[in-house]
Amino acid sequence: MNGYRDLRVALLGCGSVGAQTARLILEHGDELAARIGARLSLAGIAVRDVDAKRDVELPRELFTTDAERLVQGADIVVELMGGIEPARGLILQALQGGADVVTANKALIAAHGPELSDAAEQVGAQLSYEAAVAAAIPILRPLRESLAGDHVTRVLGIVNGSTNYILDRMDRFGDSAEDAMRVASELGYLEADPTLDVEGYDAAQKATILASIAFHTEVPVDSVYREGIANITAAQVEAAKSAGYVIKLLAIAERLTSSDGVDGVSARVYPALIRRDHPLAAVYGGKNAVFVEAEAAGELMFYGAGAGGAETASAVLGDLVSAARRHVIGGPGIPGSLHAELPILPVGEVTTAYQIMLEVHDRPGVLAAIAGLLAEHGVSAASVEQTVAPGSDGEGRAALVIGTHQAREADLAATVDALRASEEVLAVTSVLRLEGRA
Amino acid sequence: MNGYRDLRVALLGCGSVGAQTARLILEHGDELAARIGARLSLAGIAVRDVDAKRDVELPRELFTTDAERLVQGADIVVELMGGIEPARGLILQALQGGADVVTANKALIAAHGPELSDAAEQVGAQLSYEAAVAAAIPILRPLRESLAGDHVTRVLGIVNGSTNYILDRMDRFGDSAEDAMRVASELGYLEADPTLDVEGYDAAQKATILASIAFHTEVPVDSVYREGIANITAAQVEAAKSAGYVIKLLAIAERLTSSDGVDGVSARVYPALIRRDHPLAAVYGGKNAVFVEAEAAGELMFYGAGAGGAETASAVLGDLVSAARRHVIGGPGIPGSLHAELPILPVGEVTTAYQIMLEVHDRPGVLAAIAGLLAEHGVSAASVEQTVAPGSDGEGRAALVIGTHQAREADLAATVDALRASEEVLAVTSVLRLEGRA
Repeated sequence: MNGYRDLRVALLGCGSVGAQTARLILEHGDELAARIGARLSLAGIAVRDVDAKRDVELPRELFTTDAERLVQGADIVVELMGGIEPARGLILQALQGGADVVTANKALIAAHGPELSDAAEQVGAQLSYEAAVAAAIPILRPLRESLAGDHVTRVLGIVNGSTNYILDRMDRFGDSAEDAMRVASELGYLEADPTLDVEGYDAAQKATILASIAFHTEVPVDSVYREGIANITAAQVEAAKSAGYVIKLLAIAERLTSSDGVDGVSARVYPALIRRDHPLAAVYGGKNAVFVEAEAAGELMFYGAGAGGAETASAVLGDLVSAARRHVIGGPGIPGSLHAELPILPVGEVTTAYQIMLEVHDRPGVLAAIAGLLAEHGVSAASVEQTVAPGSDGEGRAALVIGTHQAREADLAATVDALRASEEVLAVTSVLRLEGRA
Repeated sequence: MNGYRDLRVALLGCGSVGAQTARLILEHGDELAARIGARLSLAGIAVRDVDAKRDVELPRELFTTDAERLVQGADIVVELMGGIEPARGLILQALQGGADVVTANKALIAAHGPELSDAAEQVGAQLSYEAAVAAAIPILRPLRESLAGDHVTRVLGIVNGSTNYILDRMDRFGDSAEDAMRVASELGYLEADPTLDVEGYDAAQKATILASIAFHTEVPVDSVYREGIANITAAQVEAAKSAGYVIKLLAIAERLTSSDGVDGVSARVYPALIRRDHPLAAVYGGKNAVFVEAEAAGELMFYGAGAGGAETASAVLGDLVSAARRHVIGGPGIPGSLHAELPILPVGEVTTAYQIMLEVHDRPGVLAAIAGLLAEHGVSAASVEQTVAPGSDGEGRAALVIGTHQAREADLAATVDALRASEEVLAVTSVLRLEGRA
């Protein structure tokens, strides 16, 4: 189509991330081709057992158990199997064959990142692994590229959603450690072996990767100092709370000068107190965030989902598009070109919820009249709250706060005009839109 | 040095961002060369009046008033003059000459982005402007590259620090609109013409840029619906607060289907209610943040400084390094290679503040003994609070919460050992590090 040439993509693994990645490649094919200037052709999906993937809604003919053969002749290999072997061997095979590689495999990168990076560098191939840290959150690319002219001094990451969920429950609902852990387990937030999360092993792998990218230095995972959250008590959480802090499990990478003057790097994981007004304190539930301090840029934070099939696949696709573009330099689909050209819609078409504040006569029938007026214009009230109007002195005036359901801006504007004209209404004192809900 | 070839960088403008950009290029020369694989050679800095830059600490011979001549022969042009002309003409000249261009000029990109992008595309040059939106925060690159395989559905940005500062004062300190505005003005947070901030013109320029990048569509700045914060009252802020909301001025770019089924884009700026537990609600003072909703990635947020010379220069340098790398593909200094190789320091070298909780005998001399013990190990107490120990029933036990100043981990560990061994101490109930402070 459109004369685009094909780039052969080999997908290794078809768990939740793999299946979502395949789906995005197939469903967004035309759009990706326009952005890349070449078509991503899914050459196959290597799995251990094809029958086990019977329920996955992907074309059957894509599945194969012969990963090695699939890797041969691929332009880009996407490794989403997890674990060390055979992932490591297949990635080396791909790189040695000149293919670019995208992986989400944090354990592998934490253990063998330098070996794999060297292999890529030797043949001029690209190895990228944005999805290995904090899933959907773009953090490695900003650290590597956006801050390439700056000096990163410290990285503080909430990079394990399970432990953040547990600590958040203890903080917000007063759960005991045991209760919070049980709920997290029931919701499937904990790995099969919960010590990977709770003892900070998972966070340590991410600390290794963050430190190596932030400081251009090989940081072995066994050099990461590690304390988990197993010993954090409800009493500690409560004491932190009353002192204006919250306890978060942090993966920390830091430039440091030792007591005898050696300039070096520290990577560590432990639960720490964070002030309530620090941006990391507002990272609730299973979310992830990485807070970066740099000499010139100051404080930055990157926030989002740290797990999930689709979320992780989004980061994999970002790396995949970037790798694919390297094959098409100078071709069509130059990054940032305006290929969609959608129409600009007027604000009247916007749909959002509203909060309207009114001053009204405090007499029977007012509420009914106003509710009727809203309904007439297709605006539905979600809540109505009546308070005494400021300065009313009980003289028959009341203040109403109306929260609406989602409504069209044009309908709302007509409603507000009608409210202003209504005999029941003394004044429309505030109209504000409500944003930030899904 | 090291056989790197030179890339000629022409800098246009030497205000606070320009001076910081020049400083970083000169001071980080070796490091940048290693990252790029070529040396950034600052060919000159074009200014209107060389004498006016007498106090800027940069080599005098770099300054010139002949911008056109400086642009000729440059490999990369960095435009930090601001305003439309002569910036636009010089950028077009640079692009037509085949140079890559980096700019922080939001007014120019909002007004002439498509024209300049087209000019760049025609000659295969790169035009980048990360610093034009939210200064130090990497947002355009993540939108363009990290989310290249995803569908962005909505972008909500706090992209004007001055108005966020004003609204934040009204929310947190109960300031009137006039008082908050006066303080912002006294602190130099407002532009010379405050209507650019207060009426949302500045935010509208950024909404244009965000919408065009998120949706690959040309969004003229005069198509952006715009309401400022001039009419926001203390009463509205107070009412929002008591209802669990905070008012923020948002720049919004959204994919939208109109009531008659047209798929399009909306870009708008207005003050809106945000729930207190939304990540944007925790963006205080003059900070900026951009919240992104994407189909696969879910919710992401990018947070940081939205203004400042060094902060903006960090983003300029990121673009500059990226442009420079295009000149050196295949050369040394491949992105992500480990060229620093700093030593990994043990956790004992880490310096941080601590909170130590103790159960002690409630008798005279205990505090003095414990303070002495801390001092002995080089740990200095910042605060000591005494409470009744839980379950003590007044039987002569007290609980102490000690906050320390910055201390070395090794000293702290020795202190805790000594506390455990002390006769005064019944139990060390909690030792937590305090992170997230500068």
